[in-house]
Amino acid sequence: MKSAQYKGDRTVAVGTSEAIKPGPGEARLEVAYCGICGTDIHIFHGAMDQRVHMPQIIGHEASAVVAEIGEGVTSVAVGDRVAVRPLKFGEPSSFDNGFAHVGKNLKFIGIDMPGGMQSSWTVPAYTLHQLPETLNLQHGAMIEPAAVACHDVRLGEVKAGETCVVIGGGPIGLLIALVAIDKGATVILSEVNQTRLDLAETLGIKVVNPMNQNLPDAVREMTNGKMADCVFEVSGSAPGVEVMTELPNVRGRIVMVAIHPQPKPVNLFKFFWSEIKMIGARLYEEQDFDEAIQLAASGKLHLDKLITKISPIDQVQETFEAIDANPDGIKYLIQCS
Amino acid sequence: MKSAQYKGDRTVAVGTSEAIKPGPGEARLEVAYCGICGTDIHIFHGAMDQRVHMPQIIGHEASAVVAEIGEGVTSVAVGDRVAVRPLKFGEPSSFDNGFAHVGKNLKFIGIDMPGGMQSSWTVPAYTLHQLPETLNLQHGAMIEPAAVACHDVRLGEVKAGETCVVIGGGPIGLLIALVAIDKGATVILSEVNQTRLDLAETLGIKVVNPMNQNLPDAVREMTNGKMADCVFEVSGSAPGVEVMTELPNVRGRIVMVAIHPQPKPVNLFKFFWSEIKMIGARLYEEQDFDEAIQLAASGKLHLDKLITKISPIDQVQETFEAIDANPDGIKYLIQCS
Repeated sequence: MKSAQYKGDRTVAVGTSEAIKPGPGEARLEVAYCGICGTDIHIFHGAMDQRVHMPQIIGHEASAVVAEIGEGVTSVAVGDRVAVRPLKFGEPSSFDNGFAHVGKNLKFIGIDMPGGMQSSWTVPAYTLHQLPETLNLQHGAMIEPAAVACHDVRLGEVKAGETCVVIGGGPIGLLIALVAIDKGATVILSEVNQTRLDLAETLGIKVVNPMNQNLPDAVREMTNGKMADCVFEVSGSAPGVEVMTELPNVRGRIVMVAIHPQPKPVNLFKFFWSEIKMIGARLYEEQDFDEAIQLAASGKLHLDKLITKISPIDQVQETFEAIDANPDGIKYLIQCS
Repeated sequence: MKSAQYKGDRTVAVGTSEAIKPGPGEARLEVAYCGICGTDIHIFHGAMDQRVHMPQIIGHEASAVVAEIGEGVTSVAVGDRVAVRPLKFGEPSSFDNGFAHVGKNLKFIGIDMPGGMQSSWTVPAYTLHQLPETLNLQHGAMIEPAAVACHDVRLGEVKAGETCVVIGGGPIGLLIALVAIDKGATVILSEVNQTRLDLAETLGIKVVNPMNQNLPDAVREMTNGKMADCVFEVSGSAPGVEVMTELPNVRGRIVMVAIHPQPKPVNLFKFFWSEIKMIGARLYEEQDFDEAIQLAASGKLHLDKLITKISPIDQVQETFEAIDANPDGIKYLIQCS
């Protein structure tokens, strides 16, 4: 049984791991593919060493086939093809307001517990979503990031006929754009990498390179002065935060998708002046996975175009190094069995 | 006809002004009382010299009696007692999304046009709201700030059983607290001035002085760990912005009421982590005036306790100086006729 284990010091080693017999309410999976997320890259860079317990089996964007089920599991059967919603819910707290997916005692599987980059993986059965036959397992590994995008677009309340601006064109930014287009919105992507912009254009997304064009001016021109109804800040950058308040129209929304570890200056006057709203969005709820699966199966997410490379688990270290070396890449998958 | 005219250099002089015959759709008012707002104090301090045209007749918190109506006016009659919603709507723009009260071409009466601190004032008739007989004209001059509070609480979607924290206990902060209490919320006010805190306590508001107590710890204790469902940032201060993200629970809201002329560091990570929402709120819509009048008439806003002093228009300069000298004061009214 192979697994990809983060051991600190920019090292993800291939090790062995035990197949764990599923307890009551659990299922053991044979993992097919597991995508590498920006968070995994942060782990690789050592930025989350205080949170992870080394050696840590990482990965949380997995597709799999159910290999064994524990007592009382009826939602899936052996042989089912599934995507995994990697959230282990904790004791509810009044602080959570009923939102377990961002609850105080939530554990994220793949950071706080062993993740999906291993050939055999035991998880709570409630994390599993069945994949339709029309969806292959490579695309199944894209359901988790697609669910993030569905969640972000849902919380942004994007409606048909609206204009969205997505700041940052990595995998999540592109998926947000595609989900918003599915809602009937026009989407403008702001991204500095030309290869990503070229890809975005082939997907029906309008593009602006803010190194070459003033983004607010470009949006003003493209919308005849109406500006954006919804802005997604996905860049995690200071220029992204600076420009995000220049884009919405009256009562426009900003969805805060990116992680900004340090406070950044925000133009609060603009919030007041045009009654702008900012909505924090993190992870996903069950319905977002359902929507992501349906959209992926429909072909609307163009997942083939978003997968840069698929590598066997033996090459996991090289793959992490390749991601660091290639700013043009989108999504790298690890084949786990 | 007397009027209070801002002439720059911390001077509000009493001058004469002409009674202007109301044109079609207009009404001429005999102004009874006009409150002094924080914005008027900013004007007095010279902070808005670039916007106002001197000499500027200031004031926008007025109660009045209709003295004369122009052609086609049917919504009010001579003798009606009214409060004024001091918004002159401009040409609608697609940017406005239908929200004229914060539209691109809005003019604010009392800043961009002659205000209510004069004995005779001609305004569009659509700005007028009838006052019920049970509401005296002193209290009528409090309708405008009360409508701000109604707007803020409405945009904050405050519901019965929720906990609100109001940061800043001036007139608007206190009125927000009272409107939120009317919705069935428990309200905690954070304010550094002890006199204001003492007043707030007599109004049924829980209080914290953040100079003596850690505000997040106090809120945690007062809510048994649930924290705040809605936070109103009314202080306009850097510490207010710093603490505001420490208070909401999951999916809690922050209503940005205060004017922050310069960008300030905001903990965006908290927005992401607990899916917090921030809602900019400015001025009011028609329904907020209706609600403010109804609440004022019911006595629930304790307006007598919020009025610090009423002075004749001849003492307007002294009154502005007194406000600067008295941090304990709440609302000062000018008697205009």
